[in-house]
Amino acid sequence: MTFLQEVVDLLLAYIVESFDRETKVIDFHYPNELLQLNNWELQDEPATLDDILISCRATLKYAIKTAHPRYFNQLSTGLDMVGLAADWLTSTANTNMFTYEVAPVFVLLEYVTLKKMREIIGWPDGRGDGIFSPGGAISNMYAMLLARFKMFPEVKEKGMSSVPRLAAFTSEHSHFSIKKGAAALGIGTESVISLCCLVLVQGFVPFFVSATAGTTVYGAFDPLIAISDICRKYNVWMHVDVSPTLNLLTLIANSVTWNPHKMMSVPLQCSALLVREEGLMQNCNQMHACYLFQQDKHYDLSYDTGDKALQCGRHVDIFKLWLMWRAKGTIGFEAQIDKCLELSEYLYNKIKDREGYQMVFDGKPQHTNVCFWYLPPGIRYMEDKEEQKKRLHKVAPVIKARMMEYGTTMVSYQPQGDKVNFFRMVISNPAATFEDIDFLIEEIERLGHDL
Amino acid sequence: MTFLQEVVDLLLAYIVESFDRETKVIDFHYPNELLQLNNWELQDEPATLDDILISCRATLKYAIKTAHPRYFNQLSTGLDMVGLAADWLTSTANTNMFTYEVAPVFVLLEYVTLKKMREIIGWPDGRGDGIFSPGGAISNMYAMLLARFKMFPEVKEKGMSSVPRLAAFTSEHSHFSIKKGAAALGIGTESVISLCCLVLVQGFVPFFVSATAGTTVYGAFDPLIAISDICRKYNVWMHVDVSPTLNLLTLIANSVTWNPHKMMSVPLQCSALLVREEGLMQNCNQMHACYLFQQDKHYDLSYDTGDKALQCGRHVDIFKLWLMWRAKGTIGFEAQIDKCLELSEYLYNKIKDREGYQMVFDGKPQHTNVCFWYLPPGIRYMEDKEEQKKRLHKVAPVIKARMMEYGTTMVSYQPQGDKVNFFRMVISNPAATFEDIDFLIEEIERLGHDL
Repeated sequence: MTFLQEVVDLLLAYIVESFDRETKVIDFHYPNELLQLNNWELQDEPATLDDILISCRATLKYAIKTAHPRYFNQLSTGLDMVGLAADWLTSTANTNMFTYEVAPVFVLLEYVTLKKMREIIGWPDGRGDGIFSPGGAISNMYAMLLARFKMFPEVKEKGMSSVPRLAAFTSEHSHFSIKKGAAALGIGTESVISLCCLVLVQGFVPFFVSATAGTTVYGAFDPLIAISDICRKYNVWMHVDVSPTLNLLTLIANSVTWNPHKMMSVPLQCSALLVREEGLMQNCNQMHACYLFQQDKHYDLSYDTGDKALQCGRHVDIFKLWLMWRAKGTIGFEAQIDKCLELSEYLYNKIKDREGYQMVFDGKPQHTNVCFWYLPPGIRYMEDKEEQKKRLHKVAPVIKARMMEYGTTMVSYQPQGDKVNFFRMVISNPAATFEDIDFLIEEIERLGHDL
Repeated sequence: MTFLQEVVDLLLAYIVESFDRETKVIDFHYPNELLQLNNWELQDEPATLDDILISCRATLKYAIKTAHPRYFNQLSTGLDMVGLAADWLTSTANTNMFTYEVAPVFVLLEYVTLKKMREIIGWPDGRGDGIFSPGGAISNMYAMLLARFKMFPEVKEKGMSSVPRLAAFTSEHSHFSIKKGAAALGIGTESVISLCCLVLVQGFVPFFVSATAGTTVYGAFDPLIAISDICRKYNVWMHVDVSPTLNLLTLIANSVTWNPHKMMSVPLQCSALLVREEGLMQNCNQMHACYLFQQDKHYDLSYDTGDKALQCGRHVDIFKLWLMWRAKGTIGFEAQIDKCLELSEYLYNKIKDREGYQMVFDGKPQHTNVCFWYLPPGIRYMEDKEEQKKRLHKVAPVIKARMMEYGTTMVSYQPQGDKVNFFRMVISNPAATFEDIDFLIEEIERLGHDL
């Protein structure tokens, strides 16, 4: 207990530090350096608790401060104190979600929360099904699995040899997990066809459309109503991946991926798949393991949710979302997301006409993603556009590397198609303010001015 | 911070209580009752921090005390203080494993630990690959995915239509996840064939054998060497699922699932897949998402492990294993497992000749699983063996229900094939002692005497 309290003291100090703008976001070292900076090796002999505290301190020293108000590297940022407390409680309860028997409260809270989520997306009386899975990629894979089973239930026993070649359609800039899912499920990545070229390919049976409300890179929205009409016409499963927002327009979908670990800032991992048809998940995935799902238990077996999952043990991801939802209320989550949208609009307005900046696409961002190039003075006025593009491609990686070496802030960059490396700013950190956006711009210019 | 410390105080009190044999393992209520016992609903309006503390207290009140020395319900039991501290630190660091950029220390610790695990199973110089996945079922699915890709790399793009019908072989009592995996991957459950009837079925190409070192129900070991010879002869991938032990004989395998959240008592979830061939995981699963795995980063990109995984975000499961390993040393883990083996032998010796008990199979258990029937006096001497069997089938469920209502202990039961419900005792709880085994037997007799 003394030991646990000592670790807690370390953690509380780390949290205070993480929110302090004077602290570095990261104390960066290259992998080979970091391997040398501490003794990380595992030994045959035990260490003392003092050694263990030293290991904890070393780990925290070199960790990224993801709660830092100037950490913008991806959609999972920030640290909510209620969410953190809930995660500590979850670890202490140390159980898993496969049956009501071993996780009575958590199973009920999952039931209550999934119902609430289905109500919010507009399914009548919150009816339907769902599960919390280990991340959005797995949720999307579940959706594809269910769509295939719905159209061809024999696939469960007979495999893909009993089924025609399938085609899955997806947004042009959809998340790469759709392809990963298609590869894993034995459908093949060649069967994943971009929605922008929605055609019926001969010999392929369309079974699944994944639309995106807020794409990963640009934050763009697919035309959900139009897609829904097509899905209905061809009797194809419609899945919507709504990572970033609470303002959902997904009541027309067969399934929805909703990741509270993104814009809602629930600690990692927290991803839900919502399914409109009741019973389908159970039919698709159940294998009746008799050592877990005994049929003669003394309570209502519909609360033994484990056989719906691909996993056997399933981590308790629900409590942090549930407790944060209690603490903030639905209006609190909405206000938090609105604030991030406001910050991204502030950033957009600040740079859209600023010298040296160029937006990657025209018009206001549809979500909190702001994609832009920074052109240092040395290349800003180059006449040779090809040469300029080549030089510009190298700007963002160097600025990012310098950000990490100084440890002042972190933001992501990437190329896309024929577009050279641009900054992809996503704002989900509830601790960020207008001043932090100002700082980011100043820092990009300070670190990139000479390039 | 005050709030966090208040939650910690609750948790520390809960931990002390959990280890106290005077405390109930569970304060059981039926689902509908539990829904009424507290207000679990989610509201639009925020709650106060005092309300949040009340919610935490209610959650802990009705949670299972999985650390309790008399909780034997499954292989994930106990609560290690160093493991818990590590999990609290992990939650506080709130990051994910996809790149070195966002999880430098954790990525290195995964690298160090996987190498150590490969050394222990005897792969030369600890070479090979691996990943921590969200549970043993997913690790097994990864193995099957890799085996298929190894034999038919074109399956990634073209799907199962490019591949002959496949056959996967598995232990008679292997874990149900092998079937779940086969269904999900589009192979089909009909392609999963029991090792006990290892035959080459016409038109099916064998690609995968999953052997088990310690089956889920009986704790039995497959003949690994003989299986390995067959795999080599037919050039088939050999996977070994070694949930329960550190004494591994798996150096002959192509892949190994090792679940430290079982016998090693690492907090849930903690499961590793080890793969002998380097580079295969990357080739099989990579999709080159350019917003994560930029090729012009300033550090060694081999530490960006995310594209090996099916998941995008991946929870940090490594730190609790690594920190516990530091604290105990390899010898500490060995001693802990030996103690559990000793307890199960004690249980076996205690009941094998005791009146009213019957073992499910002959001979000493191969692992910590002890499977047995308890025959209450009322049916013990029945001459009608069919009637006896019918009545015996109902005994374990009633005793288990009474255990939960009294909250004194928890142990699992199940039927298997033509065997009626028996108790499946698994011992992995480091807090359990000989006296707790004595208590379990007394409790079974006290609660079942009148049946």
